[in-house]
Amino acid sequence: MGDLKLPSRKENFAEWYNQLVLKAELADYAPVRGCMVVRPYGWALWENIQGALDRRFKATGHVNAAFPLLIPKSFLEKEKEHIEGFSPELAVVTIGGGQQLEEPLIVRPTSETIIGYMYSKWIKSYRDLPVLINQWGSVVRWELRTKLFLRTLEFYWQEGHTAHATAEECEEEALRMLNLYADFAINDASIPVLTGRKSNSEKFAGAVRSYSIEAMMGDTRALQAGTSHDLGQNFAKAFDIQYLDNKNEQQYVWTTSWGLSTRFVGAIIMTHGDDQGLVLPPKLAPIQIVIIPIYKNDAEKSQVMAVVAKVENDLRNFRIKVDSREEFTPGYKFNHWELRGVPLRIEIGPKDVEKGTVAFARRDIPGRDGKTFVPHEQLEMQVAEMLQTIQASIYERALNFRWTNTFDPQSYSELSETVQKGWALSWWCGRSECESKVKEDTKATARCIPFDQPGGSGPCLVCGEQSKEKVIFGRAY
Amino acid sequence: MGDLKLPSRKENFAEWYNQLVLKAELADYAPVRGCMVVRPYGWALWENIQGALDRRFKATGHVNAAFPLLIPKSFLEKEKEHIEGFSPELAVVTIGGGQQLEEPLIVRPTSETIIGYMYSKWIKSYRDLPVLINQWGSVVRWELRTKLFLRTLEFYWQEGHTAHATAEECEEEALRMLNLYADFAINDASIPVLTGRKSNSEKFAGAVRSYSIEAMMGDTRALQAGTSHDLGQNFAKAFDIQYLDNKNEQQYVWTTSWGLSTRFVGAIIMTHGDDQGLVLPPKLAPIQIVIIPIYKNDAEKSQVMAVVAKVENDLRNFRIKVDSREEFTPGYKFNHWELRGVPLRIEIGPKDVEKGTVAFARRDIPGRDGKTFVPHEQLEMQVAEMLQTIQASIYERALNFRWTNTFDPQSYSELSETVQKGWALSWWCGRSECESKVKEDTKATARCIPFDQPGGSGPCLVCGEQSKEKVIFGRAY
Repeated sequence: MGDLKLPSRKENFAEWYNQLVLKAELADYAPVRGCMVVRPYGWALWENIQGALDRRFKATGHVNAAFPLLIPKSFLEKEKEHIEGFSPELAVVTIGGGQQLEEPLIVRPTSETIIGYMYSKWIKSYRDLPVLINQWGSVVRWELRTKLFLRTLEFYWQEGHTAHATAEECEEEALRMLNLYADFAINDASIPVLTGRKSNSEKFAGAVRSYSIEAMMGDTRALQAGTSHDLGQNFAKAFDIQYLDNKNEQQYVWTTSWGLSTRFVGAIIMTHGDDQGLVLPPKLAPIQIVIIPIYKNDAEKSQVMAVVAKVENDLRNFRIKVDSREEFTPGYKFNHWELRGVPLRIEIGPKDVEKGTVAFARRDIPGRDGKTFVPHEQLEMQVAEMLQTIQASIYERALNFRWTNTFDPQSYSELSETVQKGWALSWWCGRSECESKVKEDTKATARCIPFDQPGGSGPCLVCGEQSKEKVIFGRAY
Repeated sequence: MGDLKLPSRKENFAEWYNQLVLKAELADYAPVRGCMVVRPYGWALWENIQGALDRRFKATGHVNAAFPLLIPKSFLEKEKEHIEGFSPELAVVTIGGGQQLEEPLIVRPTSETIIGYMYSKWIKSYRDLPVLINQWGSVVRWELRTKLFLRTLEFYWQEGHTAHATAEECEEEALRMLNLYADFAINDASIPVLTGRKSNSEKFAGAVRSYSIEAMMGDTRALQAGTSHDLGQNFAKAFDIQYLDNKNEQQYVWTTSWGLSTRFVGAIIMTHGDDQGLVLPPKLAPIQIVIIPIYKNDAEKSQVMAVVAKVENDLRNFRIKVDSREEFTPGYKFNHWELRGVPLRIEIGPKDVEKGTVAFARRDIPGRDGKTFVPHEQLEMQVAEMLQTIQASIYERALNFRWTNTFDPQSYSELSETVQKGWALSWWCGRSECESKVKEDTKATARCIPFDQPGGSGPCLVCGEQSKEKVIFGRAY
């Protein structure tokens, strides 16, 4: 059971995060360095994320499939930037069935190469296009500095891989999926995300253009919460994915890839969590409602538990749990479920039974302010409304936090200062040299060039050149 | 699109199977020997299998989690029988991030060891028991002779791992999960399966007792379609999984594991398929109904398509597809969807429009006998009934086939003969020597000792010793 207390976020955000992940039983360290075990409560959250995304993928015409875990080493070498980007991070199988392998096999770090190879076999004519395939699975990247959910050797994700007949359709798809991620983040996870383009130095190894959704965590750092790439014809040429167009000519296809991973669980934790623990968005919470019965003796108990059973049944369409453990006090249970971020607690005690009410306690507003007493009538509707209110309210809070901590520096020294306490939305000439200087001086990187631009122009805060786009600089996870 | 014709099952069952898997686009060969790509149609079938099982797991109190892909080599060596069973089949990662690893990592062939390690950290007291965790994922076994879905280097599965306070609860769980598999196989996949105990030589490496569901394929061979193991305290002792009981004494837990894999897709193909292709059980079919519009000119087309749209909308609660491709004839489309095993075809032509009917064509009864003409009224109910009829009818057919091909040999020579054409349900003394002799002489193995026993006793067909149990001998996949 253990201690439920966390360090405060102000005191030590990193330690608050690590302890929270462990104490809320979201994940644990695996015996292999840098690997994690996703525990049932964390996995239930991920399953809800999967469900919310998978519905959106299918509604936009995508289908799921499964490609192998093991990739011939030579495949990765076919796209030059791709191998340069991934080669330091590879896990290599050299022995199979007791024999040294002739060609080593890579445990997939991502699947563009093997999927490209299969697409070259499957795609023959324009009638076969577009191909819109997604895969749920895990990948391995040999990261040196790891952190549960945020960066682990193995992580879980989905990777979409599509092929199109034209550059326009390809670009449209990359943007469609980015917007789908944003819609999911905003509406299901209550995380306000910025959509934008990655700078050249931050784009995916092998992409023509990369896009991302960026979220601000509770310590004002940025977290890339999902990415979508227009790969142009790079992989089509590397893997010879050609189709016969309607004029009977061979053309290379245009491909995209896009992914969202268990990192997103980290985004939920660090966007909404408070010093008491997790605050989960109702749409994704594994448990939306916990009922805590309160009584002092057997007579009270039998009265209370009868009402608890009725309320549980009335609310059976929600993800609900009754904590009727005898060995813990109600106070301990409050802390236990607050730590785990259950959006709504319903307390039922003898007084509530007498009055025909229950007490609602909102997780997002701890203490007396978040408490209301609600009659039994139309309880299901009242709970639904309360969950919607919480869903909207934590979104608003996160959005306000991001606005409060997004700055508009007017000089390089202001830029250097503001990226230490939040995001800087700054004019930038687009040159890698200027971006690198900011990174070297401040550790802040160009997070994305937001689609939502102010218009007009201004001087690059590094070199002074008149610039047409603003970029978000920030320290990032 | 290619040729839709298959070899007949009589002519060459193995080749019928291979071509069917490829032509129905269930799976394809991956560039790494023995690996497969599960294509969208095959994966959609697997997703329906996953859904049907996952619902049952959750209804019986199980939760999902995710354990790492990579396992330290030393873990596998902790349970003696386990390492002996799996060591010839391991894929070994020796290089990570460009460095030779100090301890090689195994790509998991199954997860008893790493899960045992985590359970020893998590389980402290009797209050923590039972632990009922399942994992969906893939595993790698370096198989030499591979076959799509049936035996591949990497395959997809679920593996359940539970820990219990007593031997009785542990055994109960192993049997509960076996019966859950049987319930799924019979009711959702329409596959009659026998439940039973594995012989000692066929049990899982590290188990005390293994149980399986066994199905008879269309060529009369047996296929083990799911297994459940009572592991006793073997893994608890190897990984020191102890709990404090309610008398404050340290005890080793008792564990089970149970799994069902993409092999089950092979079972569906080979149980129900016919010379035209797949015959999928309606409850699991990715597409339950295909509508084929039939017309000769534009006037007919507009009439027909209006009715098609109405019927599609009336049947929107089913998994339905309208094949309105212009470039193919209705006849070609019939073959196309027959190959893919869609349970019910609805044809709508000008005559049907005139009469206010549609034509139902059952996949399980090809040709005129499976055809009925149905009025538009209460179409949804009629379709639901038809799908139920098909679901039941393919089960009955498979069950009859199994009865017809299960024999009761009275002598060793009859046993040797009958296992060449089906299953032999034979008295057996239980000794490995007798089992081995049958295997050497006939290639048939002891599939399982069915729970459903005739009672009484009879002479072992190998050694003549009076025996109390009958066993199924058969050639197996």
